[in-house]
This record gives sequence, C-alpha cells and structure tokens, in this order.
Amino acid sequence: MSQPLRVAILGAGMIGEVHRRAVLLAGAELVGVMASSQARSKEVADAWGVPQAYDDVEQAAASDADVVHICTPNASHVPFAIALMKAGKHVICEKPLGISLADAEEAAAVAAETGLVNTIPFAYRFHPMAREMRARVQDAEFGAVNLVHGSYLQDWMLNPRSTSWRVDAKAGGPSRAFGDIGSHWCDLAEWVTGDRIASLVATTSISIPQRPAATAASFSAVESDAPLIDVTTEDSACILFRTAGGVAGSAVISQLSAGRKNRLWLEVDGAHRSAVFDQEYGEQLWIGADAGATVHFRDPNHGSADQRRLSLLPAGHAQGYAQCFENFVNDSYAAVRAHAHGEAGPEGLPTFADGARAAAICDAMLTSASDGRWVDVKE
Amino acid sequence: MSQPLRVAILGAGMIGEVHRRAVLLAGAELVGVMASSQARSKEVADAWGVPQAYDDVEQAAASDADVVHICTPNASHVPFAIALMKAGKHVICEKPLGISLADAEEAAAVAAETGLVNTIPFAYRFHPMAREMRARVQDAEFGAVNLVHGSYLQDWMLNPRSTSWRVDAKAGGPSRAFGDIGSHWCDLAEWVTGDRIASLVATTSISIPQRPAATAASFSAVESDAPLIDVTTEDSACILFRTAGGVAGSAVISQLSAGRKNRLWLEVDGAHRSAVFDQEYGEQLWIGADAGATVHFRDPNHGSADQRRLSLLPAGHAQGYAQCFENFVNDSYAAVRAHAHGEAGPEGLPTFADGARAAAICDAMLTSASDGRWVDVKE
Amino acid sequence: MSQPLRVAILGAGMIGEVHRRAVLLAGAELVGVMASSQARSKEVADAWGVPQAYDDVEQAAASDADVVHICTPNASHVPFAIALMKAGKHVICEKPLGISLADAEEAAAVAAETGLVNTIPFAYRFHPMAREMRARVQDAEFGAVNLVHGSYLQDWMLNPRSTSWRVDAKAGGPSRAFGDIGSHWCDLAEWVTGDRIASLVATTSISIPQRPAATAASFSAVESDAPLIDVTTEDSACILFRTAGGVAGSAVISQLSAGRKNRLWLEVDGAHRSAVFDQEYGEQLWIGADAGATVHFRDPNHGSADQRRLSLLPAGHAQGYAQCFENFVNDSYAAVRAHAHGEAGPEGLPTFADGARAAAICDAMLTSASDGRWVDVKE
Amino acid sequence: MSQPLRVAILGAGMIGEVHRRAVLLAGAELVGVMASSQARSKEVADAWGVPQAYDDVEQAAASDADVVHICTPNASHVPFAIALMKAGKHVICEKPLGISLADAEEAAAVAAETGLVNTIPFAYRFHPMAREMRARVQDAEFGAVNLVHGSYLQDWMLNPRSTSWRVDAKAGGPSRAFGDIGSHWCDLAEWVTGDRIASLVATTSISIPQRPAATAASFSAVESDAPLIDVTTEDSACILFRTAGGVAGSAVISQLSAGRKNRLWLEVDGAHRSAVFDQEYGEQLWIGADAGATVHFRDPNHGSADQRRLSLLPAGHAQGYAQCFENFVNDSYAAVRAHAHGEAGPEGLPTFADGARAAAICDAMLTSASDGRWVDVKE
Repeated sequence: MSQPLRVAILGAGMIGEVHRRAVLLAGAELVGVMASSQARSKEVADAWGVPQAYDDVEQAAASDADVVHICTPNASHVPFAIALMKAGKHVICEKPLGISLADAEEAAAVAAETGLVNTIPFAYRFHPMAREMRARVQDAEFGAVNLVHGSYLQDWMLNPRSTSWRVDAKAGGPSRAFGDIGSHWCDLAEWVTGDRIASLVATTSISIPQRPAATAASFSAVESDAPLIDVTTEDSACILFRTAGGVAGSAVISQLSAGRKNRLWLEVDGAHRSAVFDQEYGEQLWIGADAGATVHFRDPNHGSADQRRLSLLPAGHAQGYAQCFENFVNDSYAAVRAHAHGEAGPEGLPTFADGARAAAICDAMLTSASDGRWVDVKE
Repeated sequence: MSQPLRVAILGAGMIGEVHRRAVLLAGAELVGVMASSQARSKEVADAWGVPQAYDDVEQAAASDADVVHICTPNASHVPFAIALMKAGKHVICEKPLGISLADAEEAAAVAAETGLVNTIPFAYRFHPMAREMRARVQDAEFGAVNLVHGSYLQDWMLNPRSTSWRVDAKAGGPSRAFGDIGSHWCDLAEWVTGDRIASLVATTSISIPQRPAATAASFSAVESDAPLIDVTTEDSACILFRTAGGVAGSAVISQLSAGRKNRLWLEVDGAHRSAVFDQEYGEQLWIGADAGATVHFRDPNHGSADQRRLSLLPAGHAQGYAQCFENFVNDSYAAVRAHAHGEAGPEGLPTFADGARAAAICDAMLTSASDGRWVDVKE
Repeated sequence: MSQPLRVAILGAGMIGEVHRRAVLLAGAELVGVMASSQARSKEVADAWGVPQAYDDVEQAAASDADVVHICTPNASHVPFAIALMKAGKHVICEKPLGISLADAEEAAAVAAETGLVNTIPFAYRFHPMAREMRARVQDAEFGAVNLVHGSYLQDWMLNPRSTSWRVDAKAGGPSRAFGDIGSHWCDLAEWVTGDRIASLVATTSISIPQRPAATAASFSAVESDAPLIDVTTEDSACILFRTAGGVAGSAVISQLSAGRKNRLWLEVDGAHRSAVFDQEYGEQLWIGADAGATVHFRDPNHGSADQRRLSLLPAGHAQGYAQCFENFVNDSYAAVRAHAHGEAGPEGLPTFADGARAAAICDAMLTSASDGRWVDVKE
Repeated sequence: MSQPLRVAILGAGMIGEVHRRAVLLAGAELVGVMASSQARSKEVADAWGVPQAYDDVEQAAASDADVVHICTPNASHVPFAIALMKAGKHVICEKPLGISLADAEEAAAVAAETGLVNTIPFAYRFHPMAREMRARVQDAEFGAVNLVHGSYLQDWMLNPRSTSWRVDAKAGGPSRAFGDIGSHWCDLAEWVTGDRIASLVATTSISIPQRPAATAASFSAVESDAPLIDVTTEDSACILFRTAGGVAGSAVISQLSAGRKNRLWLEVDGAHRSAVFDQEYGEQLWIGADAGATVHFRDPNHGSADQRRLSLLPAGHAQGYAQCFENFVNDSYAAVRAHAHGEAGPEGLPTFADGARAAAICDAMLTSASDGRWVDVKE
C-alpha cells in the first residue's frame, strides 16, 4: 500500500464524527482536528487520538495535511475552503457551499483556478443503485427522457417545537427545506439525466409561523423550549421546471410530511422505460416497461460497472447511508491520489461547481416563489 | 322490494357495457338502448334482451325510462344530457361533461334548474379507501392540511403507434392527459380535502409529435397503422397550485410513464398525519405519523362509516374497479329513489357541478401552459 | 345470442347472493330459488324476481333448470349434488364437497358416471395472475420445480369471541382452518405446478380452547355472546410435504394471524426462476431471477393466453375477488354449453374430483397431526 | 477515553476484512494478524499497518491482545477458540462454532469455565428493528405467541456451477443451507420469542446433485470450472417444530430461490398482534393488528430502548448490514470492558452457548430428515 493520505477535520460535531468514521475506513491518517474552541480542539484531539489540535483555520492551512474536511457551521464553509485551497489543500466541504450564490461561485472559481480536488457530499450519488439508475437512464435502450418528477419528504420539522438554525433566514440563509434537501433532489435529477434545469416556477410555504430559536443540532427530535421566533424560511417548496433539453419536470420538497423520514424519490420517464430510485429503499431500482416492471437489486455480480464497483457487500446485505458516505470519501481520496499523478479521478464526484449549481437553482427558486413567475436558472 | 328503476343506456361500446353490468347488479330494469345506428340499436337490444331500441335521443327522452345513462361520444354528452333532463329524466353522464367549459356550465345550469339527479362517474370516489381517506383527512386528528401532491401516471400512449380520438384537439377537445385523467386527480384531491384549487401554474408536453389518426377504442393497445396526424393535445402535464384555503399543491399527469398502468397517487400532508391513496393498491390507505405509518385495509368491520357502507366484500377479498363503478351507480340510483320522496340522496355523489368544475380547472391549466403564468380557476 | 342458460340457486344466504350476482352478470336466466324454509323460499323468489320457489331439493331436481348452484349448509352439499346430477342437472357446488372424504368421493364418482358438468369454486384459480403463474411455472424457461412453499393467513378468528359452525367438529367436520382455507392453498399449489402432494407431515394448534357456540355467519366479525363450547377444530395448521414428483414443500395455514385478512401466498422456486402469487395483491405476479425480479401486472395486452382471456378490465383497474367468481361461473356455464355440443369446456375448471382431492389431503393432514408421522395422501 | 482494547484477528480473507473494519470503527487498537501462511501474515500485517504477524495460534495466544477475532476456516474455529480462552483471551469467533455438535459443546463448556467473553456473530440480532421486534413480541400487549413461521431464502447456489466448500459434507460438515443460514433464522426466532425449539420434523433436498469442487470463496458468484463432485449437503430444508412453550412453527430454508438474495423473513403471530421482520427491508418492522398494520421505522427518537441504542443514524438513513456487524463488535467489546470491572455486559449478545444451541438444532434437523420422524432437540 502507498503512503496513507494525511487528513484533517475541521468541526467535531455530529457531522464531523461521520467524516472521521469514513476517514478511518478509507485507511487515511487523521493528523489534525479543529473544534469550536481551542480547549475543545485539544479535548477532541485527545479523545480521537489525533496529534494536531488547531486553534484556527490558518493553523490547519499551515499543517502538513493533504486533505481537509470542512464540517464547521455553514457560514464558515466558503472562507475556510478558500483559505485552505489557497494554501494548497485538497478540500472536502460539507453542504451547503456557503450561504449565498456569490459565496458558492467564488469557492467554485478558486477551486477551478487552483486545480485542487474539491468535493461536497451529495452523498446520494454514491448509492450504488443511483449509479445504476444513471447508467440505465443514459443508455439508448431507455429512450429519450420525457418527464422527470418526484419528491423529497421528511417529517422532522412537523413538530412546532422542532427547530434548527435554518428556520431564521438571517442565521442560515434564505432557504431551508429546498436548500437543505431540495438541493439533493435537483443534484440527483441533473446528474442522473445528464440534463440541466434551465428555468423553473416555484411556490413555498411556511406552515408553522413561529418556532423556538435554534439551539439544538439538526436531525435532533428533541423538542426545544427556547423562546419563539418568526420562521422566515420555507417548510416546503414545490417546483415545476424545464431542462435545457426541453424536458418538463416537477418536485415536491417538504420537511413536514408525517411518516416520511427521508424519502427522496426520483422518477424519470423515458421513451421506452421508466426508472425510480427511492432512497429509503436504496438497495433497489425500479425499471418500468410496458410489459411489467423489474426490480433490480444492488449486486456486485449484476448491473452496470459503477454500481458493481461501489457495491461493497453481497446482494441482500444492505449497505445503507453510511456506506454511501464512505464511497464518497473513498472516491474523493482516489481523486487526490490521481491528482498527484496528474491523472483524472473517478467519474461522478460532486464538486464545488455542483455546489454553486445548487445555489443557483435555489436562488431561482426563491425568486420565482417571490415573484410568481418562471425564472431562468443562472448558468 | 320496491318497483325497480327503469333505465336506458345510450351508447353500446365498451363503456356502455360497463354501465349495463352495473345496471344489472343494481337490480334495475334495463328498458332501452341506443347504439351508433338504428340497425345497431336493434341488434344490441336483441343481444341484451332489452325491449326498446331507440333511433335517436328524442325517443329516449320520450320513453318511460326513469334514468338514462349517456355513454356516447364526448361531443354528444351535453346536448343529450340537456335534452333528457328537459324531458324529466335523471341522467348519469359519462366523462367528460362536454368538450368545453361553456358546455359543461350549461349542463350544470340545466341540472340545477330541473333539480333532477345528475351524476358523472368520478368513480374513484367510490373506492371505499378513498372514502376512508376523506374521513380521516377531514378529521380534527389529522390537523390542518399543509400540502397536497401526487400524480396520475399511465403508459398506454407511450407507444408512438397508440392513438385515440383525443390526440387531435379538434376532435376531442384541447386537453388530453389532463382532461382524461388529471380531472380525476383534481376531483379526488378537492373532494378528499374539502378545499378547492384557486389558482395554478402549468406546463404541458407533447413528446410524440405525430400519431396515427384515431380509429381504435380508448384503452386498446392495438397498434394503429392509420396515417399519421399532428398531435395537438398534451401527453403530460405538470401543475402547481394554491387552494382557496391557501394550501400549496402539485400534480404530475402523464400517459407515457412506462410501467405505470393506472397509478393515481394522492398524498395529503397534515399537521399531525399524512395520508396516501394509491389507486392501483386501492384496498389500502397509508397513514403516516411521526412514530410510524399505518396501513388500513378496506374492511366492513373497521374504519369510517362510509367506507364500511361501500365495502361489499370481506377484508382481503379485493373489490376492484368494477365495484367502484357499481357503488357509483348504486348511489346514483339511491339518489333517484330519494328524489322521488323529496329526500336527499347519499352524500358524496359527483354531479354535473363537479363536471363543470373539472372543465374550469382544465381551462385554467391550458391557459397557464400557454401563457406561462399563474392563472385563477374560474369559480 | 343463443338461448340463455336456465339456472336455479339453492341457498339464499350471503354466499347465495354472491352466486346470484355472477348468474346475472353471466347473462343466464335465474328460474328458481330454494331458501331455508318454504316461506323463506317464496320471500326470496319475490325479492329476486324469480318465478320458481322450491320447497325442497326434489322440486329443484324436477324443475326445468339446466344448472343448479348449491349454496346450502355443508352437510347438504353432497346429497343435494347427487340428487341433482341423478336428475340430469349440471351442478355448481359450494365448498367443501361434503364433510368427509367418503362423501366427497361419492359425489365425484356420481359426477364421473353422469358426465355432467360439476364444479366447485376454488375461485383463486380464476385470478388472471394465478393463470399467469401457472403458465410460467409450467414453461420450460422456468426450469424444474425445486421447492413449493407459502401460507394462507387470516385473522378473523383471532378474537376469542369470534366463532363459526366450524369450531365444533361435530357440526362442521374435523378440520377448520385447513379445510376452509388450506384446501385453497393446496389446490392452487397443485394446479399451478401440475404436481401432486404425495405425502405430508402436519401439526395443528387450537390456540383458543373455547369459543361461543356458532350462531353468526362466517366472515362476520360480530362478537358473539353465545355460551362457550369447547373448540375441537384447529385454528392453525402447518404442513411439510413431498409431491409425486419428489419436490419438497411447506405451508402455514392460520385463522389467527393479526393483520392478515386473506393472505394466500404461494411461492414456487424453479431451476431458473421463482414465482410468487399473493392473493391480496392479485393484480400482479412476482417472478424472481438471479439478476432481478419482475413484477407482471394483470393486462389484457400482455402475458399468457388464459390470463388475457380472463382479464376483463384494462391493466391498472383492479378486478378483485368478485370478478374471479364471475370468471368461475362464466367458465362453468361455458362448460355446460360445450357439453350440449359434446365438446370440452374451458381448461382449468375445478371439479368434484378436485373437491375429493381436497378432502383426501385434509384427511392425511388430520391423521398426521394426530399420529405425528408422515402420511401418504390417498390417490 | 479509556485505553483502547488491544485486538488481534486470525484470518485475513473477506470475512477478516469485515472484522477489521468493525475493529477500526470501534476505536480498538489492532495489534496483530494471522493469515494463511507465515509469509501471508507478514504481508497482511504490512498492508494493514499492524505490528504483530503471527505464525500460528500459539503466538496469538501468547500475545498481549485482549480480544482475538477468529475468522479462519470452520474446522479451526473450536480448537483456536479453546486455545485462546485457555490463554485468557476474550474471543469473537465466526460462525459456525465448529463442524459438529460435540465441538460446539466443548467450546461452550470451556467458555463457561473460563468466564471470558465469548461471542459469535448472529449479526441479525443487531438490526435495531430485530431488537424492536423482540421488545414488542415479549411485551404483554402482544399477547401469547400462537405461531412462529418464516423463511430464509437465497439464490447464490441456484447456478449449478456455483459451489462452496460446504457442498461436500466431508469438507464442511453434514449440513449446508440449514447450517449456514437456517441457524440464523432459528437463533432469531428463539431470541425474539424467548422460547426454544423443543422438537422438530424436517425434510431436505439436494436439487443439484453435482457441483464443481470448492475453490472459490463463499458469496462469490463466479462460476467455477473445477471438476464436478457429488453434492452431499442440502440445497434446501423445511422444518416444522414445537417450542418448549408448546407453540407450533415452520421455516423454509433455501439457497436456490431465484431472485431472493438474503431474505430472512420471520413472522410471529400473537394473541393480539403479529410481527414481521424482513432482513432485506431491515429498516422497518411490520406489526399487524385486526384494525390495520403499522410499519415502524428504525428511529433513534421512537421505539424500544435497545432499538434506539443501536440506531446510529437518523431515521430514513439506512444503516444496513455493516452497521449490524459494528453493533455486534461494539457490544462484544463493551462486554470485555464490563468484564474487567466484574460487571455484566450489554444484554442480547450471542455467545458460544448460542453457537452450541445452533449445532443441536442442526443435528436434530439432520436426524429427522434422515429418519422421517419428529426428533427432540438436545438441551
């Protein structure tokens, strides 16, 4: 085995832990960590058995790490990413890529200039069966795409006492449900079809007008008893769109659909076949045809090359979300190793350009919801 | 048993047969029939063992029938219905209620004036579990509705050699997929929620620009070898909407989604529960809650009163589409019998007012698709 | 149309109504009825608009009916059927074919002698997708059968206050769950595979030792408050078996599996494919292969000839149980009409020989459960 | 954090890798490895970055490891485990616990004497929803268990060119399908119900009489072109059983059910509820009741304590098989740490006693299949 990559993680909350886990499994060497304070950085470094505890991003930028994972609060994503890339670090940055389109575009521009590896975890691309869907949708046998539709539904914000920093536009940016999960849906839809959303019309809803001020972590279902503040970001958003290729589409995004935990559902209807990927049943792919529907299972022994490559377990032994994330980090690291040899990394990695793309779609969505008209997505 | 109702059927094609079946099962007396020609009327009357064979609608209007079923081509629906109501007949008229909004409004106005029973087969209302959904969605425990979404997908027009009279706007009216099946979705959504679509924005697609001229019956999958004509009605339509109550919604309507045979899917997300009815699995209703999802089965022994009333078979012995239609005809006849006593008929019957409503929504959809803006639905 | 068949129905309870419905839909002429008493026969004849009200089976045997449906209590099935066949009537007899193997064998023998049409409603054979399963399982592409397994689960006897005449072996014969629903499973398994259960080992359970004495109709979930009696027939039965062809199999039969309404599930595993029919989702058939599973929908436009023949509605418009029963009666009548011309009727009809077969399997099951050993099924 | 546990792994094949992954994630220190030869041990130690490469089990027994994972070929499991326990090592031993009942009993006896931690990966116990099932089945609300049934179906031996060392009884022990996967089913059934299989009757089948001699790894679908040998172990097995508590049950075990990848399905029917766990859809648990069925999702915020404890990801983000295995190793290590303080470890760990139990059931199964009679399972 070649020398392991040297890796640092900025941010030691729940999501930092998820990254650490993937770092370990990827066989990389975790050399440094930065947490919410100097004292906390030292504590975490000790707990994780990591040599370097950074006081600030500058120390991380000056370290001997090859790759830095950014898992800090959203507002810091872009400044940290830029500082690190300017110091020559490859960067894996958590979603979203900043809290404005301008931010995201700047990060993407710096990434393009430096030529360093830059990825963001649109992790659902790493479900083997999402790869299978992409291979099949882009295959001639599928036929031209006629329609793209689906939804991404959760219920963790259904309780009026649930909250997150994103309920307040000033704190977390002007979009919540769409920015948080709609972005995943759009990324997957564009990536699977190889087509882009060119224009859209949207409507958004705030069903719960006040919520507790944010103090708890995302995904926590703990009811907050903090004082109420006005909610200024959407609980749900619906969009219609047209792609550059002229295809119509529709998506429903909601964080208050009772009983829906993480239902990212994408259907693509083509001239000969249809395809459905449902993230909650991510071990399978539904392919519809006139004479019946076929359910393909994730399987290292069957299907498209990339699906097989990312299938780490025998069929019937579910991989799950954590292994999507591992696949994402493995491929990011493979890109870093390829970069060292001037080679291209694995196909299909979500980059800062994709992060900027998500921001552009979100911007158009907000403009349309506000103005009540079709809006072009900035290219 | 009281004297059976005297019933006539106009139109003896596939759909006329469906009505005849329901007439028989309802215990009514089939007294007359009109088919596509005088000769054919006599043939059918003979084959069905029916005494009267009508040459034209006037003969039917002058007959001793209590109720007339109109199963003739669409353009005749409204003139026939009006002629019959003016002659004092109760009318069960096939969908659509004419081929223009003006037609439908006129029929609804005459119906209102005469006070006769007037129904149209939005048959999915008669799935017992659609009733169950309605009862639950309108129950306080469900909470205020936050979002209404879904789709109605078929694939019978996926084959470029498939056709129907509705591919040509001049022959079948300006909308195809939406008028044919989108109307069912909207009717069910409004009826289940008790709320109305106030405004909408739409986009439509014609994916197959030419098809054979219509000669074959609807639902037939026989490939036509007729000469090609330009398709001028939509293969698919997507809408976003706002209800009178301020709720956002979305629907995807398509006749070319491979592998989808008749997938009417309606989800309503409320403040405490969500509900899903999927017509292809019409024996069950999905109710989502934060702590899990419950699947309720059609069951004469459990659930809401109207579901139990329409559950004609023990749980687990699927009723299917034909028994929806029987329920519709039974309730229409019950309304006729109630009318004779100056009483109200069963709740939930789809009437000409509902048919006019469907035409108004379709009109708004077409206007929006053409103009690219939000359009109010005429009340 | 040829002269309609002349039909009589003996028994005017819930199941008699089911038959009447199918008679009407088949276009036959209902000429006579016999109910539980002379007075009741007259009432029913009046209510149904039927000319003849029989006092006893002799009158029915002497009538001008072509076909007689026997829907009376079980103990009368065989004597009535024999009396009617000896009078030259074709007979459609409700399940079970008597309450002992000897009874059933006698009925089958008389049927064979007279050569008249004799059928019993193993109605699940008339699910189009059960036909599809049979066609596929017996096709060379499926490969030799390796394993046959499944279950038939209901919950209507889960409530200790539920009862039926069959809880008491003296009243309804020595087997309940197996005789009632296990017989359907075995019939379907043998019919689909074309192989026969040669020997079996069984275990039965009575989970609720006392229940109210029977007064209510089967399928009723009304809680009885009748005095308790000892239950002497099984609530559930499990069998292992070997077929004449040497294939192993297993079935679990239960009337107290909570949440299971009528879950007849049959899986056949072959050398190249597997197949599953689940009655509660009877519009589809699951075919497993190494590379994925295909779900075939009932569809008049696709699949095997017999499936298409029995598909009376377009795909996606569920047929349900009632149309199984209609298919059964239609095919029985087609056999009667064919008999008049000395021709063979439709393939696949369940006859008295199949009823006797069911009795033989039930007998072996009871013997094995009692003796604790493998028992051969009488041929 | 306390000092990490020191861990060694014997066996560096596919399953050894699975263990290594869990070791890393558990935060333990991997100190040594033994592979198939001295040279290979050194290679693996180098590749994994592990300090100690063992020549034989004695070196491992003499090392400073706290815990040793045994992932070597089956015949070595018991001798290695005994040697290691006698040297004071805690042992995590792959399934099966030896290749005979005597072996397994000896290992369990030594484990009991030494009092060291001893576990075997009946990993499905660590699906959070299997825990949820156990909690619910053993809850009073469920009611007394009436029936236990299900199946464990795979298709990886359907291809006549597929093989494993287990096709030959001399090489891999006298049972294949049952020993390999039936053991999991029985363990789960007993563990979930808290009841034990007291007696059983079985039938086994060898559908493919000859296969290539084993050379390839298990789970590999590579077609072997090795010379054919006689297959002397079962492709499938069916059992009926009675538990110590008097409950009847049934299981179908097969490795040649086309389209079934790893379908462990367990249904328990109780006096008030039924419960189904289907491993391929392991994120959910089906609970049946008379009035409907509820689908519970794995969810750190809802459900029983142990399910929540083992739910490492938010609901809707599937955990999968790998995280079952991690949970198993984590709990095994927790038991080791508890042992150091004289405390009890986590509840629910599968131990050598459970491995011996599996061997006893397998023995009874083989005896019954051979003798054709009910056989008591040795306690």
